[in-house]
Amino acid sequence: MTVAETDGIGEHRLALQSALGDDIVLTDADAMAHYCRDWHGDVTSGAVAVLRPRSTEDVAASVRICRELGLGIVPQGGNTGLVLGAIPDMPERHVVLSLERMNRIRKIDADDFSAVVEAGCILWEMKEAIAEKGMFFPLALGAQGSCRIGGNVSTNAGGINVLRYGMTRELVLGLEVVLPDGSIFDGLSTLRKDNRGVDLKQLFIGAEGTLGIITAVSIKLMPYPDKVATALLGLASLQDAISLYRRARRDCCDLMSAFEFMPPLAFTLAREAMPDLPILIAPDYPAYVLMEISGSGLVDIDDLMQRFLEGVMTDGLVVDGTIAASQAQARNLWLIREGMNEGQARRGSHMRSDISVSLSQLASFVADAEAAILQALPDCISVSYGHVGDGNVHLNVLPPAGLAPDERAERIYRAKTVLNEVVDRYYGSISAEHGIGRLKRPDFDARLPETHRKLLTAVKRAIDPGLMMNPGCQLNFQPKS
Amino acid sequence: MTVAETDGIGEHRLALQSALGDDIVLTDADAMAHYCRDWHGDVTSGAVAVLRPRSTEDVAASVRICRELGLGIVPQGGNTGLVLGAIPDMPERHVVLSLERMNRIRKIDADDFSAVVEAGCILWEMKEAIAEKGMFFPLALGAQGSCRIGGNVSTNAGGINVLRYGMTRELVLGLEVVLPDGSIFDGLSTLRKDNRGVDLKQLFIGAEGTLGIITAVSIKLMPYPDKVATALLGLASLQDAISLYRRARRDCCDLMSAFEFMPPLAFTLAREAMPDLPILIAPDYPAYVLMEISGSGLVDIDDLMQRFLEGVMTDGLVVDGTIAASQAQARNLWLIREGMNEGQARRGSHMRSDISVSLSQLASFVADAEAAILQALPDCISVSYGHVGDGNVHLNVLPPAGLAPDERAERIYRAKTVLNEVVDRYYGSISAEHGIGRLKRPDFDARLPETHRKLLTAVKRAIDPGLMMNPGCQLNFQPKS
Repeated sequence: MTVAETDGIGEHRLALQSALGDDIVLTDADAMAHYCRDWHGDVTSGAVAVLRPRSTEDVAASVRICRELGLGIVPQGGNTGLVLGAIPDMPERHVVLSLERMNRIRKIDADDFSAVVEAGCILWEMKEAIAEKGMFFPLALGAQGSCRIGGNVSTNAGGINVLRYGMTRELVLGLEVVLPDGSIFDGLSTLRKDNRGVDLKQLFIGAEGTLGIITAVSIKLMPYPDKVATALLGLASLQDAISLYRRARRDCCDLMSAFEFMPPLAFTLAREAMPDLPILIAPDYPAYVLMEISGSGLVDIDDLMQRFLEGVMTDGLVVDGTIAASQAQARNLWLIREGMNEGQARRGSHMRSDISVSLSQLASFVADAEAAILQALPDCISVSYGHVGDGNVHLNVLPPAGLAPDERAERIYRAKTVLNEVVDRYYGSISAEHGIGRLKRPDFDARLPETHRKLLTAVKRAIDPGLMMNPGCQLNFQPKS
Repeated sequence: MTVAETDGIGEHRLALQSALGDDIVLTDADAMAHYCRDWHGDVTSGAVAVLRPRSTEDVAASVRICRELGLGIVPQGGNTGLVLGAIPDMPERHVVLSLERMNRIRKIDADDFSAVVEAGCILWEMKEAIAEKGMFFPLALGAQGSCRIGGNVSTNAGGINVLRYGMTRELVLGLEVVLPDGSIFDGLSTLRKDNRGVDLKQLFIGAEGTLGIITAVSIKLMPYPDKVATALLGLASLQDAISLYRRARRDCCDLMSAFEFMPPLAFTLAREAMPDLPILIAPDYPAYVLMEISGSGLVDIDDLMQRFLEGVMTDGLVVDGTIAASQAQARNLWLIREGMNEGQARRGSHMRSDISVSLSQLASFVADAEAAILQALPDCISVSYGHVGDGNVHLNVLPPAGLAPDERAERIYRAKTVLNEVVDRYYGSISAEHGIGRLKRPDFDARLPETHRKLLTAVKRAIDPGLMMNPGCQLNFQPKS
């Protein structure tokens, strides 16, 4: 950083403080560090300042002063994203705008099956408050204790319940957004049906803050599903898991809420992170499925699970299985899934992916991709797991222990290259649920059809002509100089 | 029309024929009449030509020549819309582009729970072909024998199954769209999850052809729900119907597929259209609910309906009820709903509406609105019915028999004014599921918040700078001269 740039930062900080006040503007490097580091700790950056508005009007004022100063704004929720969508890549030109203080639940209306919440609400806390009213918000993902609903909407988060309830997009009834010109888009209606023309709010869902800053969300609620049956099943192959999913969709109708597949390695990894975790099934079947059926009211969920499993075991589709006999046992089954992630993290930096292909091709995709990686990187291990119903696989590649950092980085880079080549062959998506952020921008950019690019650029320039909203995220809209 | 304009039309017709060929271009007034008249027969218009492309490339060529000639394009599906979205309002400046010949089913993949269909597929025919593969596409509305899927997507159609499966938007996986510059947006992927940045296809869903022409759609399929239980219930009030809906959402979990309310007048109207229709319930309860539970596989749907009704009748929430004992009886119950619409049509032109309010306020809204109309128009009759779960009411007003046409028109105009005033008081929507088209443009325009207008205009001008796509639909984007 040159002296002139440092001076520029100083002036910008003074201007921000004078416009917004010390309560909102953080500039201390230590205090800012937490907002400028990604969830995995892979990347550390900085910012001109971190702004922490308490209200929609504060956000609007923040946008106006940043615009005046020519600063880019990187909106941030719980900072749990996995693709560097909320971390500035030009510390001397960007501010982070954290929504964490806008965390009020404005309304939970059980009679109306809706709620209005501010962007900074932590997903889990919000779900707990909703559950207290007998209602349910189905979004469920690993980071739910830290992620915030504004970030979930901005990234159109997925998670384990998508097969039944859809992505976050399908759970949103309305949005309040501060636009790049500092005006407030008030679309917080809770109407279930509203067909008044082009649905503008859709633009901001999944835009990762590149078109405006989501400050509040109205959402759909469901009756709380107080009956849950959870089973861990051992199968002869991933292909059988897919056949099982199809059968479960028909047999269990719309009452299935999760259907996750895992390899046997999941148990090893989970035990590395949680040595005392009970494993209630033989750990050496070629494939496992963690399945959940849930509901409320008059449907006997336990009986449904029992009869379903009897049928598929009789037919040989499932080789072995265990149904959780208590909530604690169900929790332990889910801990295998979570422990597997923690176990991977303990093996050091590795390649993570988030791919979707068509359901029909999921098994052959995993086989082809794992074979390609084994051939290119014989000393690495592939771990494939994910959401069968969504054709969504997280195929991760773990380099062996004892490699030097640059050797690990080289393995990770090559693994990604090999994997993406297979993804392209299957017409798959390189981001099923995590978004693009800055991490996947080059891969996204390289695959973007020309018509998509023109349309995306036209929309971006129409709504954010100053290109100040989350610059560098998703696409670099700067004209090439 | 002046001679000069007629000459202009003649030149334009020649240019269209020379660019696209006689097979695609209709100019004969009789042949065009069918495309230039709305569903109710309320409005008759004309066009420079009706274009009937057979392929996506034909559509692109049509857009390019129209652009060259400076002609506006009005895309049309089955022409069953209720808001004049597909009828030109400048016959000497607009062409109708009918998608009816693009009616191939490109793929039905039961294993993948998806299909790819061209815009001109008739909804019912498409659903039948899908059912033959054991699958189900849940969109269901009165016009399904004539409407086409491209129009359903363009208008984000609703219908009777929205409470369970969502609007058309939630059933769409991908789109192919011809853009105003004649390029083809190929977004026909069938991936269930794809989070690669801003979801551009959302722009075209519900845009009523104002941003581009949808030529093909990929859609979600479900297992066919071969078990259906249908019941007609008599209740003490609409408020009780809402309480019943809340209870049904919890008791029947996600297995309820329809929950319609009707007034006792429904039976009178249905009998006027279908004198022999059996009515299997006393016709004088204050409110009726037509309820459907459906599913596939291992859930006993009949038993669920039985136990649900026992509970709510014991509690006095439902006074009387009949469960269809056969498919024929179920069909007859639905015929009451359909006959009611036909009965209204037989009473001559009347005011139709399509309103949504919050579920909690549905009963008081209907009471207030009917009282306001009774006071303003004591010789007219209100008929309110609709989709409880969506807070969606069709409150129609029937003028008395024997009025002169201009007197009827005056009643209809005043009824709409009175009704909209009540809708505004309830923060409701003047279009829950029908769209804006040209019919509701003035009412939409008058209620559009300034931030929405700026955003909508920016998006329109970015994608369709020549303002050639469905001019006059939704909003008049022309600068005021």
